Amino acid sequence: MKDKFYQYILNLQNQITTKLEEVDGVAKFREDIWERPEGGGGRTRVIENGQVFEKGGVNISAVHGKLPDSMQKMFNVGEADFFACGLSLVIHPRNPMVPTVHANWRYFEMHDDDGNIINSWFGGGQDLTPYYLFEEDAKHFHQTCKIACDKHNPEFYPKYKKQCDSYFWNAHRNEARGIGGLFFDYCKDTSDSELAKQTEKKMSMEDWYNLVTEVGNSFLEAYVPIVEKRKNLEYTSAQRTWQEIRRGRYVEFNLVHDKGTLFGLKTNGRIESILMSLPPHVQWVYDHHPELESEEEKLIKVLMNPVEWV
Amino acid sequence: MKDKFYQYILNLQNQITTKLEEVDGVAKFREDIWERPEGGGGRTRVIENGQVFEKGGVNISAVHGKLPDSMQKMFNVGEADFFACGLSLVIHPRNPMVPTVHANWRYFEMHDDDGNIINSWFGGGQDLTPYYLFEEDAKHFHQTCKIACDKHNPEFYPKYKKQCDSYFWNAHRNEARGIGGLFFDYCKDTSDSELAKQTEKKMSMEDWYNLVTEVGNSFLEAYVPIVEKRKNLEYTSAQRTWQEIRRGRYVEFNLVHDKGTLFGLKTNGRIESILMSLPPHVQWVYDHHPELESEEEKLIKVLMNPVEWV
Repeated sequence: MKDKFYQYILNLQNQITTKLEEVDGVAKFREDIWERPEGGGGRTRVIENGQVFEKGGVNISAVHGKLPDSMQKMFNVGEADFFACGLSLVIHPRNPMVPTVHANWRYFEMHDDDGNIINSWFGGGQDLTPYYLFEEDAKHFHQTCKIACDKHNPEFYPKYKKQCDSYFWNAHRNEARGIGGLFFDYCKDTSDSELAKQTEKKMSMEDWYNLVTEVGNSFLEAYVPIVEKRKNLEYTSAQRTWQEIRRGRYVEFNLVHDKGTLFGLKTNGRIESILMSLPPHVQWVYDHHPELESEEEKLIKVLMNPVEWV
Repeated sequence: MKDKFYQYILNLQNQITTKLEEVDGVAKFREDIWERPEGGGGRTRVIENGQVFEKGGVNISAVHGKLPDSMQKMFNVGEADFFACGLSLVIHPRNPMVPTVHANWRYFEMHDDDGNIINSWFGGGQDLTPYYLFEEDAKHFHQTCKIACDKHNPEFYPKYKKQCDSYFWNAHRNEARGIGGLFFDYCKDTSDSELAKQTEKKMSMEDWYNLVTEVGNSFLEAYVPIVEKRKNLEYTSAQRTWQEIRRGRYVEFNLVHDKGTLFGLKTNGRIESILMSLPPHVQWVYDHHPELESEEEKLIKVLMNPVEWV
């Protein structure tokens, strides 16, 4: 499974970066290959100062070795070997009418001394962060997520949509980071399990692989049509300022609440690959509030009360 | 003591905001009075878009009530009443040749059911974050800190200087946030204590009050002459970009590592008063490195290896 999934994310990274370069039309991804001293490494691809994409990263990594202390605590286990691989992406477009997008698909294994898998799971998701809300874009994104999930189980979309709203909750601001999408984690083999929830069909790791890759394959379809539709819209400098202020909330979420980011920062991950998620130009303005009944206020209301888009 | 110290910070806030407005020459502090639902409140003063100061806050607060669960855990105590007051300031100048400054002076009390003080302490400090390093400025700032400390005990400056370098360490970047200053905490009454370190003379709460207010009184003398000396220096847009990138490190420290900020965010503090510390315009550039032998690289080297300035 680990080789199969790693091959998948290698190919997916190529597909996504090729397509995004085509959409941008000017900028190219810069590639950095890095190694992890304790085992494994990654292939970071970053785009900057594009025509459409102001900054973004589409990174893969595959790391292995002894499970670090911090992960032992997190998973409540003792010493073990582990393998983890995944693709993470964050794209910050220049035009405030084009939403920021984040996606991640990952696979994790723990091994005993003889190299047998003692536990393994998939995780991931994709979510959208608009600065101006076009309801049809939100519907398109969620509809694409739903179609991918529904092929596997009609209960997955509502479940993972809800988990997404809950995970990307910027608690100290009492608002969501964006308008959500999907978020799933600890997707484990339940094919032999008496505990598998009755509301969820039993899932083998192969079944989860099929779901996760289905979602991964849906990413470009979920995002690119929105970019194409909005990338040439005109915008004012006030709208650009609003985007930069909202990007500040993105930074706050990633540095204060995002488990993946904090985990990477505290376990000696490759900092530049982790923090490629931070937006290029950001503002913090004291006690900023959008005007009543404005487009900006409309967004805030939706972020404070997540919507069922499909 | 709590009334005395609260009066002190009320007056100090007035002194500092009056002086900084005078230095700026254009912008005025905006004042927001706020109340904490559980008891107490604060007086936030923020300056924005000044000629010299691009953004800054000089805030006081005095809060009281039942010790929140999170603070019970932090202090390893059970239920109790508490009182806390302090002044916090962060000033982000526009010109990259002028350093950012942070200072905080605070007093904390815990009470039993009859209102008797069962524990109390002072904390605080002041530290400087330059974007371009003028060694004479660093020396002036530290010298001023040292003079204030030396009046009380010659061992304080080296001790609190070291604690400052250690506290404001941006671990995931392997560098200090700035060039330091003073940081002290849990300054408790040792006048009756057998445990008082032999290297430190016994200190009553009155003695600590005298030290903390001595440092508070030194703030304007430590910072303003540096602002006056650098505020009219010319700078290039590349130097401004460098400042904005370095401000990103300031954000990273405050949101990832700063205990005060995280504590405020997680205990329902007044968000806008806490996050006034974040800089106005910030950039994140992927894998940015200053040129060899440049002024920018000179700064980084000092941040990676804190210097004894006096």
